[in-house]
Amino acid sequence: MAAKPKVVCLGGGHGLAATLAAMRTLTNNVTAVVTVADNGGSSGRLRAEFNSLPPGDLRMALAALCADDEWGKSWAEIMQYRFTSNGQMDNHAIGNLLLTALWDRDQDPVQGLDRVGQLLKVVGRVLPMALEPLDIEAKFTNSSGTSVVRGQVEVAAATGKVSDLRLIPERPKPTPEVSKALQEADWITIGPGSWLSSVMPHFLFTEQADQIRASKGRKIMIFNLPDKNISDEFAGFSFEAHLQLVLDHIPDLKIDIALIDNSLDNKETGFNDLVAKCGGKVLAFDLADKVQTFHHDRDKLISAFSHIFG
Amino acid sequence: MAAKPKVVCLGGGHGLAATLAAMRTLTNNVTAVVTVADNGGSSGRLRAEFNSLPPGDLRMALAALCADDEWGKSWAEIMQYRFTSNGQMDNHAIGNLLLTALWDRDQDPVQGLDRVGQLLKVVGRVLPMALEPLDIEAKFTNSSGTSVVRGQVEVAAATGKVSDLRLIPERPKPTPEVSKALQEADWITIGPGSWLSSVMPHFLFTEQADQIRASKGRKIMIFNLPDKNISDEFAGFSFEAHLQLVLDHIPDLKIDIALIDNSLDNKETGFNDLVAKCGGKVLAFDLADKVQTFHHDRDKLISAFSHIFG
Repeated sequence: MAAKPKVVCLGGGHGLAATLAAMRTLTNNVTAVVTVADNGGSSGRLRAEFNSLPPGDLRMALAALCADDEWGKSWAEIMQYRFTSNGQMDNHAIGNLLLTALWDRDQDPVQGLDRVGQLLKVVGRVLPMALEPLDIEAKFTNSSGTSVVRGQVEVAAATGKVSDLRLIPERPKPTPEVSKALQEADWITIGPGSWLSSVMPHFLFTEQADQIRASKGRKIMIFNLPDKNISDEFAGFSFEAHLQLVLDHIPDLKIDIALIDNSLDNKETGFNDLVAKCGGKVLAFDLADKVQTFHHDRDKLISAFSHIFG
Repeated sequence: MAAKPKVVCLGGGHGLAATLAAMRTLTNNVTAVVTVADNGGSSGRLRAEFNSLPPGDLRMALAALCADDEWGKSWAEIMQYRFTSNGQMDNHAIGNLLLTALWDRDQDPVQGLDRVGQLLKVVGRVLPMALEPLDIEAKFTNSSGTSVVRGQVEVAAATGKVSDLRLIPERPKPTPEVSKALQEADWITIGPGSWLSSVMPHFLFTEQADQIRASKGRKIMIFNLPDKNISDEFAGFSFEAHLQLVLDHIPDLKIDIALIDNSLDNKETGFNDLVAKCGGKVLAFDLADKVQTFHHDRDKLISAFSHIFG
């Protein structure tokens, strides 16, 4: 059997968790690089109280990397559990609190994540894309005019044509371990997930975008599944528009594989051309969860990744 | 090697944790039975928000039963860590939150404790002495007169002669697993710890006191170390007064061994007589921690218990 590939998975939220849950069955050398711009819910409250990274997306990644035995599944489930009360603890996810406790104690985001990873015996490693909390800002133009919107929650709720997307701060403190992982990667996955909140931040952070470009790792961009009901700030846009938004920021980005669901295959010739211009090809697989059709199914992603890795 | 003894350790707080940390090195069949009357700090706030058991003493017992390897020590340390902030999370111990999350989810105190025990791979089992939160109430008579004080925090702060000590509710919902453990015990330890908060509740709960009396398990009562600085509600009283307070509630209690620190040996003839009346003998060992002389040293407790178990 060939050596297990070194894989870096970029993203945030549920989309990244889906990729990770599949990827960890194929290699134990998996590094999640996670957005840290959430400002809502439990993460937003903890970020405000401790001036820390928002823990939620990192927690989800850790839960996705928990082992498949009963003990690992039990931990994954507990990490995700949210309190329900009429008081101060309501909606806090226990995993968010565990991460925040370690950051509060040691004031070191990566050390805290590594320690939780050891306590939960996760496969691979979870890293924040930056060592400080970020904000997303964008200009939205719609029938009411143009407005600048700041904050992941606020951007997700805004409608209209997006422009001037940026991170605040624009040059955040980078995570040295991310740089090293990108340099050594055999494969880099990007997405799926909320395009403005979970995918674009990785390209808006110039230093990291340069490292993605420079990496010899082959790049798989995983596109979202169609969901008519989702209130995603960039849902409803075409694959081409999704990719074009990335290229607007990194015009010379090379992509090896654009992974899409086969229910949508060949319907966008513009997309195929754009992927070819990036040096890659479109691969279409059956990827959708049977019940939640806008979520990627783990076993189907495992099949797709296995095929791609050869 | 003889079979490992079945040991039930009754108590609460730091005293019980000291006993457990020693005991788990001698047997993996150890059951902690823990008071649930705390109403202060992190435990008090969580108890009020969730109408749950106060988790603090149970958390301390779980931490004391974590394994001695690096992973176990790491978990023990994290369970005990308390947030420091100017906000809502300040002073909450992460282990309190983990327990409360599981109780909030499943509404089953014992199931939640067992699950945390599995997640942390602890030796033995931690049980609450009752399935509902309790309050301690006592009458204190001092120079200002007589007053009835309710609440563990309030009782700990009160001064004067104690009388009419009781639990509210007086007949709480018992924990069936405690009854079974007491029935099967080879040994039962009681204490050390804050006498009114951590030791007496086990005897004030008539149903449990009856089970302690009825158990064929031999009983070791572990008395506190002298501490001139401690603001304990029953500190400064003699060993005899400590034992007499128990006997005031359970006059026919049999004790096999009264374990005291040898710095105090033979200074209380009344105590020796009272222990003899209970059918037991006083054993004096060097037990004190070198630095925190009012805390029991784990290794010294291990020696004492080993000697007792023969």
